Amino acid sequence: MRAVVFEKFQSAPVVTEVDRPTPGPGEVLLKVAGSGACHSDVSIYAEFTADNPAGIAPPFVLGHEVSGWVEELGEGVRGVEVGSAHLVYGPIGCGRCAACSRGQDTYCENVASMPYLATGIGRDGGMAEYVTVPVRNLVPLGDADPVAAAPLSDAALTPYHAIKLALPNLAGGGRFALVVGLGGLGQIAVQILTALTGATVIATDMKPDAMERAAAAGAVTVPGGEGQVEAIRAITGGRGVDAAFDFVGAGPTIRTAQASMARQGRLTVVGIAGGAAEWSFFANPYEATLTNTYWGTLEELHEVVAMYRAGQIRPDVEKFALEDALEAYRRLEEGSLTGRAVVVPHAPVH
Amino acid sequence: MRAVVFEKFQSAPVVTEVDRPTPGPGEVLLKVAGSGACHSDVSIYAEFTADNPAGIAPPFVLGHEVSGWVEELGEGVRGVEVGSAHLVYGPIGCGRCAACSRGQDTYCENVASMPYLATGIGRDGGMAEYVTVPVRNLVPLGDADPVAAAPLSDAALTPYHAIKLALPNLAGGGRFALVVGLGGLGQIAVQILTALTGATVIATDMKPDAMERAAAAGAVTVPGGEGQVEAIRAITGGRGVDAAFDFVGAGPTIRTAQASMARQGRLTVVGIAGGAAEWSFFANPYEATLTNTYWGTLEELHEVVAMYRAGQIRPDVEKFALEDALEAYRRLEEGSLTGRAVVVPHAPVH
Amino acid sequence: MRAVVFEKFQSAPVVTEVDRPTPGPGEVLLKVAGSGACHSDVSIYAEFTADNPAGIAPPFVLGHEVSGWVEELGEGVRGVEVGSAHLVYGPIGCGRCAACSRGQDTYCENVASMPYLATGIGRDGGMAEYVTVPVRNLVPLGDADPVAAAPLSDAALTPYHAIKLALPNLAGGGRFALVVGLGGLGQIAVQILTALTGATVIATDMKPDAMERAAAAGAVTVPGGEGQVEAIRAITGGRGVDAAFDFVGAGPTIRTAQASMARQGRLTVVGIAGGAAEWSFFANPYEATLTNTYWGTLEELHEVVAMYRAGQIRPDVEKFALEDALEAYRRLEEGSLTGRAVVVPHAPVH
Amino acid sequence: MRAVVFEKFQSAPVVTEVDRPTPGPGEVLLKVAGSGACHSDVSIYAEFTADNPAGIAPPFVLGHEVSGWVEELGEGVRGVEVGSAHLVYGPIGCGRCAACSRGQDTYCENVASMPYLATGIGRDGGMAEYVTVPVRNLVPLGDADPVAAAPLSDAALTPYHAIKLALPNLAGGGRFALVVGLGGLGQIAVQILTALTGATVIATDMKPDAMERAAAAGAVTVPGGEGQVEAIRAITGGRGVDAAFDFVGAGPTIRTAQASMARQGRLTVVGIAGGAAEWSFFANPYEATLTNTYWGTLEELHEVVAMYRAGQIRPDVEKFALEDALEAYRRLEEGSLTGRAVVVPHAPVH
Repeated sequence: MRAVVFEKFQSAPVVTEVDRPTPGPGEVLLKVAGSGACHSDVSIYAEFTADNPAGIAPPFVLGHEVSGWVEELGEGVRGVEVGSAHLVYGPIGCGRCAACSRGQDTYCENVASMPYLATGIGRDGGMAEYVTVPVRNLVPLGDADPVAAAPLSDAALTPYHAIKLALPNLAGGGRFALVVGLGGLGQIAVQILTALTGATVIATDMKPDAMERAAAAGAVTVPGGEGQVEAIRAITGGRGVDAAFDFVGAGPTIRTAQASMARQGRLTVVGIAGGAAEWSFFANPYEATLTNTYWGTLEELHEVVAMYRAGQIRPDVEKFALEDALEAYRRLEEGSLTGRAVVVPHAPVH
Repeated sequence: MRAVVFEKFQSAPVVTEVDRPTPGPGEVLLKVAGSGACHSDVSIYAEFTADNPAGIAPPFVLGHEVSGWVEELGEGVRGVEVGSAHLVYGPIGCGRCAACSRGQDTYCENVASMPYLATGIGRDGGMAEYVTVPVRNLVPLGDADPVAAAPLSDAALTPYHAIKLALPNLAGGGRFALVVGLGGLGQIAVQILTALTGATVIATDMKPDAMERAAAAGAVTVPGGEGQVEAIRAITGGRGVDAAFDFVGAGPTIRTAQASMARQGRLTVVGIAGGAAEWSFFANPYEATLTNTYWGTLEELHEVVAMYRAGQIRPDVEKFALEDALEAYRRLEEGSLTGRAVVVPHAPVH
Repeated sequence: MRAVVFEKFQSAPVVTEVDRPTPGPGEVLLKVAGSGACHSDVSIYAEFTADNPAGIAPPFVLGHEVSGWVEELGEGVRGVEVGSAHLVYGPIGCGRCAACSRGQDTYCENVASMPYLATGIGRDGGMAEYVTVPVRNLVPLGDADPVAAAPLSDAALTPYHAIKLALPNLAGGGRFALVVGLGGLGQIAVQILTALTGATVIATDMKPDAMERAAAAGAVTVPGGEGQVEAIRAITGGRGVDAAFDFVGAGPTIRTAQASMARQGRLTVVGIAGGAAEWSFFANPYEATLTNTYWGTLEELHEVVAMYRAGQIRPDVEKFALEDALEAYRRLEEGSLTGRAVVVPHAPVH
Repeated sequence: MRAVVFEKFQSAPVVTEVDRPTPGPGEVLLKVAGSGACHSDVSIYAEFTADNPAGIAPPFVLGHEVSGWVEELGEGVRGVEVGSAHLVYGPIGCGRCAACSRGQDTYCENVASMPYLATGIGRDGGMAEYVTVPVRNLVPLGDADPVAAAPLSDAALTPYHAIKLALPNLAGGGRFALVVGLGGLGQIAVQILTALTGATVIATDMKPDAMERAAAAGAVTVPGGEGQVEAIRAITGGRGVDAAFDFVGAGPTIRTAQASMARQGRLTVVGIAGGAAEWSFFANPYEATLTNTYWGTLEELHEVVAMYRAGQIRPDVEKFALEDALEAYRRLEEGSLTGRAVVVPHAPVH
C-alpha cells in the first residue's frame, strides 16, 4: 500500500510503498478515511535527532490525527463492527499505570520504556491506506463524516482538554474567556467556548481573516499590537478574563495573557513556542493560576465527537490525495493553508 | 405612600396608605421600580397562620422581588449613588453566621431568632412606592431596565442557583439537561441552561404554548403524558439526562425525572408541591443524586444580573399599576398570567 | 490445579481439580497469593438463577478479590516483571466505551454484551492456585504483604470510591462524617475517613465489638437503637453530618442517615440490602443529596494500594487454606468471621 | 485607654493614651483578649510612605490579629451576648461588591475607595484595651482560650485559605504536600495539612529547630541547601509533590518548589518576599499550576476556629503585656521569637 514515511531524521518524508499491516491481538486494521497533517510532524521530520527526548526513531508512517473504517479485527477483539467509522485516540501509553488507567496515556508513567508515543509518532500512523490501532483507542463516529473528523483527535482534543480544565473558572454569568492565536486550534477553541460556556469569548490574532472567522463563530475580536491588553480589559469592564488560552506560547503572547487576567483566573499555555514568562507575587492577580497542558484524554475524545456530531465543533479542512501529502506539508510549512490539511488516501478527494 | 399590605392571616392583602419608611443605619431607601408578584405571597396571605414555621407575622408590605432607584442613604452608607438602579437580594439573615458570611442568608443558622426572612417576607417589601433595604443587599443594574429586572431576584435566582450547582454534571460535550415544568422559573431555567452549557436542553410541560416558548429559547420539547419518559430517553440515545430540574415537585413530576436520569446525573427538585418520592438502591442509576434547593446566594444575584444585562436572561413580564396589585394576584391565582406580574408603583406603566 | 468452582445455580461451590489456565494475549498468569470471600459470592451461588440480570452462568472459579505474583506473560505483554506482586482490579468491561476509557469498567456501557462482569464473576476468579487476568487490571503491590491485600480490591475500593466522591463535602475544618454499619467495609471506611479528612467520624452499629474496633481507629461511636439520631446530632452540635455512608442499605439504616444529615451534606447508600427510602422536599435538609454507589475505578485502586502501603488502611483478615474455602463461606454465611476471610492457595497459611 | 499607635510613616509605634472608642451602628466594642504582632505591621510602620498603594495613613492603633470579649453593642446589633469571646476577621471591604458578598473582603472590588483595609490596617486595631469592629466580622470562640486564638485570624487563616484551594490536589491516597519555610504560618500549615489530608507532608527550612517542631506535628523534614530537591523527590518516589506552599516567596524558594512539583500539582506562593520566578512550557510539569494567595475568607475563619477548638490547630504564642508591645516588635524584627507574639492588654499575662 502507499504511505507517507518518515525515513530518516532531518529530512522530508517520502510517499512510498510499504506492506499493509496486520492487526495484532487487541488491535483492529483501519481503512484510513482521513489523516491530518500537523506541525508536530514537521518538528519530527525536520528537527528531531537520534537523541530526541521522546526516544522515537524512523522509519515509520506519519499521521497521528486519524479516522477510518474498521477493515479487520485482530485476535480477541469483539463488539466492533467491520465497516463502522471511528476516530483514533492517538496517544498510546503502557496501559498499566495510573495515568493510562484513567485514559490519560499522554501522562503515562512508563513512557520512557515505550518505543513510541502515539499512532504516527514512533509507530506507524494514518498517512497510509491502512493502519493498525489498539481497539481501545477507537471512538465511534456513527454516521458523521469521518474525513473532516480526522483532525479532531488533536486539533480539537487539545483545546477541549485545556478548556475542560478551565470550565470551573467559566461557570456562571458574567465570565470572560480569552483565546490568543487563531490558527486551527484557536478557531476550534472559540467554537468550544461559545458552545460550552456563557462567557464572552475574546479572540486575538495578528491576521484579520483569522479574526473574521473567530467573530463569525461568536467571538469579540481584538487585534494584536499596541493597546491590545487595554482593549481586552476594556471589554471585561476592567476586571480581566477568567480564563485565557494561549495557542502560541511565545514570550509576548504569554505576557499579553498574563496582563489580561482577572483574579482567580486560569491562564493555560497550549502553544509550544517555548517562550519564557516571568512570574512574581505582586504582578500576579490574586489566585490567578498559570499552567500548561498537553493533548487530552480518551474519554474527552468521546465528548469531542459528541460535539462534532451536534455541529458544535466545525473543523475547517483542506483535503489532499495521499500522493499530494508532501504538498500538504509544504503548504503547512509556508503557512498558506486556511484549514487543517487532511490527507485522504482513498479517493475521490472532493 | 401607597402600599400593598398583608394585614392579617388568611385574608387578601389591601392597597392602602402607609408611612414612607426611613432608612436605618446601613440601609438605603429605594424608590421602587418594580415588584414581582409571586406564588409564595399567595401562600403567605392565604394559608399561613400564627404558628407558621417561618415565624412571621402581619402586618407588613408584600413584595420580595424588588428593584428600584436609590433615594436616600441611611447612616454609615457610602459608595452608593443616589438615583442609581439596583436589584434587591431578598433574603436577610442574621449577618453573622457562617452561612450569611458567604452571602447565603437563605441558610442562616440563626433564622429562628430573626423576626423576618426577607424583604417582603416578615419585613416591609417592595409593593409600595418606597422600601428600605440593607445596602449589602443591593446589586447594581447599571443602565439595564429595572422594571423587567424585578422578578429576577427570585424567578431567575432560584433556577440559577439550582443550575449552578449542577454545572459540573453538564460540563463538556454530549450532555443532556431536563426541565420539568415551564412556568416562569422553568422558562428562565431553559434560557440559563442554553446560555451556560452546551447540553441539549429537554423541556416538558402539559401546556403547548409553554413548550413553544421553551422551544423558541432553544429547548427540545417533550409533551407530558404517556410515553414522556421514553421520549426523553430516546433523545439522549437511551442513557438519560445528566441533570434534571423539577419546577413542580409533585409526586408524578419527581418520578418522571427520576426515571429519566443517567448514571452520575443530578436531579434537583425546585418546585415546592411537596410530593413524596420513593428511592431505592436498585432503582437509582449509579451515583445519580437526588436533592432539593432553595432560592440562591447574594453573589449569584450579581451573576444573574450579568446574564440579564448580556441578554442571556429575558424575563417575560406583565406590568400592573400599584392600585391594580390585587388584580395581579387574582390573575396569578387563576393561572391566567403569561409572564411574571410586576407591580410598577411609579407610573407610567406601559 | 485446585480451585473453588461454582458449578451450578443455587448450590454451594465445590473444591475440585481444574486445568491450570494459559494467559491469552494481553493477559498474565498470576500465582494466587490471596482471594477474599465476599457476600456477593454467596448471592451468586445461593440465589442467582439462569435469568440473572448480570447474564452470568456457571461453571467458573469464584474469587473477585485477588492478589498474586506474576507467573507468566501472555502475548504482547511487556513491562511486568515475573515474580512481582500485584492486586487485581476485578471489574472487566468492554474496554472500548467512555466509562471503560476512564477506568470505570463497573459502568461499562456495553455490559449487556459481556459474558462476565469481573474476574471471579462469570469468568474464572482467584479461588484457585492460578488465575489469568488482563495486564491492565494489575496494580503493583511492591513489597507489601499480598495476602492481606487481597480483600482491598473490593472491601476497601468500594468504601474508598464512595468516600472519594464525598471528599468535597468533608473538605475543611469542622466537618462530620457518619458511617452506618461496621462490618468489613464499614471498618475500612472509618480508617479511610480518619486518614483522608479532618472530620469527626461518627460510627454506629448494633454490635459493641464492632464499635470498639471503630473507636480504636478513631471514630466516635453511637449505639444503634433508641436515641441514635439524637446522639449523632448532638455530636455535631445539632447541625447534622456533612457526609453519611450507609453500609447496610436497609430501610431503617437509610432513615437513620437521612435524619442525621446537615444541609448540603451527601448521603451515600453503599450496602445493598435494597431498602426503600422516602424522600420529600420539606423533609430533606436543603441541598443534601441522596445517592448510591458501586465498587470503584481502576485508578482508585492504585490509590487504595498507596494507603495500604502507608499503613492508612489495615485490613483485618482470617486466612484459610484453599481446601478450607467452603468452611470460610460457611463462617461468612453464619456471620462468625471477625475479619475478611482470605483463601490462601499456596501454603503455609499462618 | 492604653494603645500601640502608629503615629507617622517610617517610625516605630508608640504606647500611649487614646480615647476608648464607641461602637458605631452595626459594630461592637470588644475588650481585647489578645492581639498578634505581625511582620506586616513592621512593613507598615517602617517602610510605608504617604503614597503607599494601600492608601492608608497614620495615626491608627496597630493590631489586625485580634480576639476579645464583647463589651458593648452598637446600634442595630442583636444576637450577640455581652461577655462572649470572639475572634475578629480582620479584612473590611466595601460590603456591597460581589467579593464582599461572599465574605472575601480581601478581594473587595471597591478597595480603592476604602480608607482602610482591615482592623489595625488603616483603622484602629487590637493593640489596645478596646477596639470596635463590625459585628459581621466576629467569629465565636465558645469556651476556647481567646488569647492563644488571636494570631489565628492571620497566621492560621492565611495558610488555611491556601491549603483549602489545594485540597482537590491532595484528595485521596498516595498524595504528597510540601511546605517551604517553617515560621509561624508554615508550622500551622503543617498542622492543617496533617489534619485535613492523608498526604505525606514534607517540610523544609534552614533552621533545625523549626524542622523539629514540624516533625513533631507529623511532617517528614528535608533540610535546605544542596540536594534539597533531590531529597524531596526521593520521598515521593520521583514523581514530585501534588501541592506545594512557599511561605517565603523568594526566588530560590520558589525555584525549589517548582522543581519539586508533580504533574497536575499546585504551587501556591504565600510568602511575600517578592521573588521572581521563571516559567516555561517545557520546564513546567504538565498541568502543574503556579499561583499566589492572600489571607482568607470570613467563612474560612469559622472553619479555622473549628479546627482550633478541636485541637487540630495549636498556635505557639509568646505573650507580652501591652506596655511591652514594642519589645515584642523588637524581638519580631530581630527574629528571636519562637512563637507568635501576642499582646495581652488586660493582665495578668502568664
